[in-house]
Amino acid sequence: MKQVYGYITAPRGFRAAGVSCGIKREGKDLALIVCETDAAAAGTFTTNRFCAAPVSLSRERLRSGRARAVIVNSGCANSCTGEEGIRDAERVIRSAARILKLDESGICIASTGRIGSRLPVELIEEGLEPLAAGLSEEGGRDAALAILTTDSCVKEAVARINIGGAEVTIGGMAKGAGMVYPNMATMLAFITTDAAVSSDCLQRILLESVERSFNCISVDGDRSTNDSVIALASGLAGNSVIESIGSKEARIFEKALNGVTGTLAEQIVRDGEGASKFIEIIVRGAADRTEARRLAFAVANSPLFKAAIYGEDPNWGRIVSAIGAAGVALDPDRVEVKLQGECVFKGGAACGADRDTLAELLRRYDVAVSVGLDRGAGEARVLTCDLTPQYVDLNSS
Amino acid sequence: MKQVYGYITAPRGFRAAGVSCGIKREGKDLALIVCETDAAAAGTFTTNRFCAAPVSLSRERLRSGRARAVIVNSGCANSCTGEEGIRDAERVIRSAARILKLDESGICIASTGRIGSRLPVELIEEGLEPLAAGLSEEGGRDAALAILTTDSCVKEAVARINIGGAEVTIGGMAKGAGMVYPNMATMLAFITTDAAVSSDCLQRILLESVERSFNCISVDGDRSTNDSVIALASGLAGNSVIESIGSKEARIFEKALNGVTGTLAEQIVRDGEGASKFIEIIVRGAADRTEARRLAFAVANSPLFKAAIYGEDPNWGRIVSAIGAAGVALDPDRVEVKLQGECVFKGGAACGADRDTLAELLRRYDVAVSVGLDRGAGEARVLTCDLTPQYVDLNSS
Repeated sequence: MKQVYGYITAPRGFRAAGVSCGIKREGKDLALIVCETDAAAAGTFTTNRFCAAPVSLSRERLRSGRARAVIVNSGCANSCTGEEGIRDAERVIRSAARILKLDESGICIASTGRIGSRLPVELIEEGLEPLAAGLSEEGGRDAALAILTTDSCVKEAVARINIGGAEVTIGGMAKGAGMVYPNMATMLAFITTDAAVSSDCLQRILLESVERSFNCISVDGDRSTNDSVIALASGLAGNSVIESIGSKEARIFEKALNGVTGTLAEQIVRDGEGASKFIEIIVRGAADRTEARRLAFAVANSPLFKAAIYGEDPNWGRIVSAIGAAGVALDPDRVEVKLQGECVFKGGAACGADRDTLAELLRRYDVAVSVGLDRGAGEARVLTCDLTPQYVDLNSS
Repeated sequence: MKQVYGYITAPRGFRAAGVSCGIKREGKDLALIVCETDAAAAGTFTTNRFCAAPVSLSRERLRSGRARAVIVNSGCANSCTGEEGIRDAERVIRSAARILKLDESGICIASTGRIGSRLPVELIEEGLEPLAAGLSEEGGRDAALAILTTDSCVKEAVARINIGGAEVTIGGMAKGAGMVYPNMATMLAFITTDAAVSSDCLQRILLESVERSFNCISVDGDRSTNDSVIALASGLAGNSVIESIGSKEARIFEKALNGVTGTLAEQIVRDGEGASKFIEIIVRGAADRTEARRLAFAVANSPLFKAAIYGEDPNWGRIVSAIGAAGVALDPDRVEVKLQGECVFKGGAACGADRDTLAELLRRYDVAVSVGLDRGAGEARVLTCDLTPQYVDLNSS
């Protein structure tokens, strides 16, 4: 697998565009991805009980396993908008279908922005013509820009692999931000590939890949009313169709997809609202993966721990407290905690790490916490960032 | 019930003192409460797997249902200190027993402060003499001062009731702070009363009272390594002994105790680190109390919601998102959300509340959120405060 420079339009068969239609006060706010074939399609969405109108519609459309296009707007979530919200999103899809000369059923939709406001359908409809006119194989960057909200930069990744002699490309773009806690900031990600892959296989590989990437940053990404991950596969790479999960080809594809989603997830965390540090929490030796995740998130979601990291304060007691409060029947005497590679807690007590050394190590931008439990083989890796006064400022207005 | 001015020394039979022994750089850091009778005693402690040495010792001592004194220090949590931590705490108790001429088994201990440092036993032993010499019926305020850490003011409450002709007094003091989230800041509370009450009865009433008060502020108070609530009853009020939970006398006592713990809990939230707003979240119509609490805490622990309240931004979508992500099988169409008494969400959609009106109402110091679920009779009331840049500053060094 090779990570290469590029956009979601890097795989064969995709065009994209991004324009400003006036939903946001400034910047691009309307994106379109179109596949020239009837793409194998897969998706995974928020588990929030109040899922937004675009989530309901895209989830429904992806049942067929096929799609041709995705339209995305930023600046308005079209969430908590009831039946009117559904009708608004359907109208946008209908207009896009007419302009793109595609069947409505093949168009997915995603939205991000403020909750509780109606979608400005007329602004979007006015934007659709220039959007469609702007579709190109170079349009991935504009699309990546148009889906951002408080993000400070685009999130893109492209991987290239060889599957049975065929060159296969996977592209991805995402938006995130607001990653400091169990949070409701919307996470959107779109994956394109020219791999020939069955939609069943794509769906299963995507779910596991999202579980390891987007669902391992701060707290479960799938919690805002709008979180959506949609993948389209054009099948133009010329590889023999990937149809079986266990096959060698599927594993090569899976690994490359994990590279793309993992890189996007890391970019989201590194661009966390107001973040000044990137924190990686690794838990090993838990009873199973679920338990390992629970403990890793307990640390990742501790505001006291995250504020200490912002202050470069080696207050590792906050890590121990967070683990102890996570509701896991661990044995304190068998727990080992490391901060920046230095052992700070072992055998039920502090292990005398030098505070000044730790403080010096915490000056780095990248912070590593590792927790060993000696209970089993469960592992998890969770990424988060520090809690800063800037985070509060950004989210208070 | 009458809330009256006073300290934990208000009930008959109690003396207290607070001194500075040098654990903290400045301010009092060592407190003592002594009962002149062999008090009926009860307690409830953290559920954190890494409970601190003083918690283990006090929990053990309270099994007998009797105690004579509580010694409390701030500035060092004596947590993550292993066997040495236990021995340090035992030595402090032994020294206190000698000076007070009491049996060791009747002395409880509590600590709060930084995790992972050994208790400065010699400093404490030097402080014990002046501490014991300073014990008085007016010493409650000094004791309340000595248990504080980052708190900006003492937390005290006293209630007076009549039980069968006898005047009964209940006093309380607490320390809190750091209440912004699922947090590990230690909560300590000490309750004194001159009621004659069996220790069994006291324990059961205390547990329920703590459940409704300290365990309903931000997230479960019982999560730091040191959280402790200890109650002593001198029995000097002359009432006939309260021995049965359902009795009229028990109910009068219970209500007064709830008044004291509720007031202390509210004082803790109002003094939350860096807090600028006091937020009350009431959930009604949940399937049961557990579910109601879960939803109320989901809102109380949403950093996005709390940052919005700090900014006086009527972004109620963050309340809806938090509820929807709480893992409760609620029906979005039957949920009603009110902010400052104004309906903002009903029947699955925004109900058109005026943003300017809401913004104006949010200028108040007190913020009220109410959520109706129409699923059952479960109710919960959770208190929290806003998330401010000051919180992060305070916790980063």
